[in-house]
Amino acid sequence: MLSIRGAAAIVGIGQTEFSKDSGRSELQLCAEAVRAAIADAGLQPADVDGAVTFTIDPNDELNLMRSVGIRQMRWTSRTPFGGGGSSATIEHATAAVVSGAADVVVVYRAFNERSGRRFGQPMAGPLPPAMNWYLPYGLDTPAKAYSLWFQRYMHRYGVSNEDFGRYSVVARRHAATNPNAWYYERPITLADHQASRWIVEPILRLLDCCQESDGGVALIVTRADRAKDLRRPPVTIEAATQGNTIFGETIFNYYHDDISRFPEAEYTARQLWETAGIGPEDIDVAMIYENFSPVVFYQLESYGFCGPGEAKDFIADGNIDIGGKLPVNTNGGLLGEGYIHGMNNILEGVRQLRGDAANQVEGAELVLCSAGRSALVLGRG
Amino acid sequence: MLSIRGAAAIVGIGQTEFSKDSGRSELQLCAEAVRAAIADAGLQPADVDGAVTFTIDPNDELNLMRSVGIRQMRWTSRTPFGGGGSSATIEHATAAVVSGAADVVVVYRAFNERSGRRFGQPMAGPLPPAMNWYLPYGLDTPAKAYSLWFQRYMHRYGVSNEDFGRYSVVARRHAATNPNAWYYERPITLADHQASRWIVEPILRLLDCCQESDGGVALIVTRADRAKDLRRPPVTIEAATQGNTIFGETIFNYYHDDISRFPEAEYTARQLWETAGIGPEDIDVAMIYENFSPVVFYQLESYGFCGPGEAKDFIADGNIDIGGKLPVNTNGGLLGEGYIHGMNNILEGVRQLRGDAANQVEGAELVLCSAGRSALVLGRG
Repeated sequence: MLSIRGAAAIVGIGQTEFSKDSGRSELQLCAEAVRAAIADAGLQPADVDGAVTFTIDPNDELNLMRSVGIRQMRWTSRTPFGGGGSSATIEHATAAVVSGAADVVVVYRAFNERSGRRFGQPMAGPLPPAMNWYLPYGLDTPAKAYSLWFQRYMHRYGVSNEDFGRYSVVARRHAATNPNAWYYERPITLADHQASRWIVEPILRLLDCCQESDGGVALIVTRADRAKDLRRPPVTIEAATQGNTIFGETIFNYYHDDISRFPEAEYTARQLWETAGIGPEDIDVAMIYENFSPVVFYQLESYGFCGPGEAKDFIADGNIDIGGKLPVNTNGGLLGEGYIHGMNNILEGVRQLRGDAANQVEGAELVLCSAGRSALVLGRG
Repeated sequence: MLSIRGAAAIVGIGQTEFSKDSGRSELQLCAEAVRAAIADAGLQPADVDGAVTFTIDPNDELNLMRSVGIRQMRWTSRTPFGGGGSSATIEHATAAVVSGAADVVVVYRAFNERSGRRFGQPMAGPLPPAMNWYLPYGLDTPAKAYSLWFQRYMHRYGVSNEDFGRYSVVARRHAATNPNAWYYERPITLADHQASRWIVEPILRLLDCCQESDGGVALIVTRADRAKDLRRPPVTIEAATQGNTIFGETIFNYYHDDISRFPEAEYTARQLWETAGIGPEDIDVAMIYENFSPVVFYQLESYGFCGPGEAKDFIADGNIDIGGKLPVNTNGGLLGEGYIHGMNNILEGVRQLRGDAANQVEGAELVLCSAGRSALVLGRG
């Protein structure tokens, strides 16, 4: 396998506030985040010649060009699979700059996901294909459709909703000291978690669910050799990949032989370790996509941070706290900071490696950003 | 600029028949084309680890994996902008294999565009953003929305609908001797063209419009060094790029300073010549996306095959015929062979370079495939 290790870097990040009612258009949010990222990199809009976003992002590349002043673009691509594909945006941008298809690629995601179309509501209209098999049986929200997967894991390993709650408490603790977080200065206790209402009994409570957020984020990717001359210390892309497997589904996992595991994340893990030439013991901070708290458990195990069924003890023992063995979601994650479809977690990874995160992990040199079916490792350039 | 010149190759192609009523699902068409392309390359489904298609393709990558037997995929991407982005699929696949993100990428496009949702009908629902400004004034089909752009060109250079018809006659002549073409053995005369009904008077007649087709096509891309060991002579990717420009639109061109030109194609042209180290005089066959015949005129001029306003004479003088200076759309193009959103033109480019096209251009070594806002140059490996 060829290796892209260290050939590209993230050189700029930008964002809007994360809110419940932005009061402005999704294109405005997108343009604000992109302009901020370009400025952060010390570049001009005319330096950008590529763009990557999600298939379901509402912001057309051409509207973005006009809004921000990007003159020409010779690369555009979009990643399918919603939040699960979020880390694939960086894979795309890396391939674009490493292959010479573009010099400076902006990665963006912006939406009014709380004041506009709410992802947590019952689904209708065009759906991920397998959803058509679940919807008639009432699995019409992500929370419901995911829960049977989580329940198998709970049954097999003796995990309770209270165990999930211990993750939520950590996420909210991190959010409480992060001024960017919606839940800044609002930590919760395990009792708060256990008092929150059931969303899907006995699996998910309200405080196991990510937020619905309005906001926009953007990142700038360029080749590592060019990154050296820019304003900010570059954050190198040590590995970036996707982990689609046969019998997988867009956002659930019911057709694999063993549904108490997460084969997509296991596949991304193998690739990341091989490409970056490292192992789980080398990771200093893990940013883990969590639309729901149990997904953190699956991913901790898939990446080998602990063994199958051991995530509940790994979390309960304080390993994922700041100062622990593997600080996780140091920004508060998608539960605590905001739900910009996973992309805000990549921004936090960049901040940790620049050394200016709100909850800085001292000496962080390697950060994992995992969205289950796509993932990357970032390094200090 | 880095160069991808010759670093990747197309090693397999596959297709279904092109029809008006396939009688089977879009996923079935997709799977048939992909299996054919994999077999053509002498590979197995399990060798594929990447996929590229259009944002608007109905075929989910995961359904394709399950249908065809692809075990794992570490690259997926989609290109926006519909047919204008068709050549960008090859840019994506090239970047994926050159960067090491994937080894073997399948590019696919399949739909029931005649028996299912017809693209030529009045548009409704989610639209390219600028369309919202045209639709209320009645520009509700692609033919109508494009025609004002074409009319400016006609006015400026003294071009008539009869001039456009001379392209249609050539396309149908090529289709008439191509068994893959819907219009196989059905050539037209200029009188037939002029007798066909107006779609938008005095700009487009019925025989200026591409077909609506059911069908599927697929291509396999891998690195050039791996391509050498495969079953078929590799067709190298000499250059592949996109040409998005500020004040551009998804499928029209009303905000540029001079709407009698095609800035997107001029931008792709500059990039292709620079990357491939060639010029228009080196191209042996040009495959040019033509949802409507006038788009061929714009592109012939944008690539420098002739000067501004000279396309009508270039075509009338026989230059685009088989045996002419620059044979164009040797398969019959989207008017004559079928409208698989431009991708069938890339298959024809591969056939010309393998030397087994129905209307073979002797000694063809370099083929241009242009879709206006994306384009590539293919070479004999």
